[in-house]
Amino acid sequence: MDDKVNLAQKLALLEAPYQPGIVGYYNDNKLVVVKIQGEFTWHRHADTDDFFLVLAGELTIQLRDRDDVVLGPGELYVVPRGVEHCPKADVETHVLLIEPRGTVNTGDAGGEMTAPEREL
Amino acid sequence: MDDKVNLAQKLALLEAPYQPGIVGYYNDNKLVVVKIQGEFTWHRHADTDDFFLVLAGELTIQLRDRDDVVLGPGELYVVPRGVEHCPKADVETHVLLIEPRGTVNTGDAGGEMTAPEREL
Repeated sequence: MDDKVNLAQKLALLEAPYQPGIVGYYNDNKLVVVKIQGEFTWHRHADTDDFFLVLAGELTIQLRDRDDVVLGPGELYVVPRGVEHCPKADVETHVLLIEPRGTVNTGDAGGEMTAPEREL
Repeated sequence: MDDKVNLAQKLALLEAPYQPGIVGYYNDNKLVVVKIQGEFTWHRHADTDDFFLVLAGELTIQLRDRDDVVLGPGELYVVPRGVEHCPKADVETHVLLIEPRGTVNTGDAGGEMTAPEREL
């Protein structure tokens, strides 16, 4: 994973929403692409912020007790650590995530949307 | 800096190449936008990787003793820690950088292209 990464090419390898794939690393963080469509699960990460950059589509990040954040292409948002959130999208949306290695996609919530870490 | 960030809007605030601006934070890292045109200075960061994502234009990252990496929009590259590198671009190029807070843009090299940390 020592080469440059074309994000659109990596996203084309993903078969379905909410099946993230690691495309590289930055220090102790994983660089992850994911397709989002439909609603995820409410969860929080107690020990880390959560970086979202939208590459295509439109992402709504629902936040507990705060206004939703709606992101289009070229827009990013960092969910502060500990803040419960739930991503959703009406159309297929392409996202770059950055999280510490080992971070579980469903955070404290677990459940059937939990995905293993895998490299693309 | 708790809101969403529109990267193009932030880049429009930059007056000149190589004058980076912080648009947010992710854990102990700063999220930085910068315009690149012309050649930077050869430098290395001994203690950190260096994340580059091209948003517009074309960026060449020259690497000591390795092939150049050429990035277009939607392409990223992480310069491994300790690897001497020198960005350059023929046309105005827009980049998102991620580096630990406090990282100096010119790394070990210093010199007149060293820029202060500032938030946009």
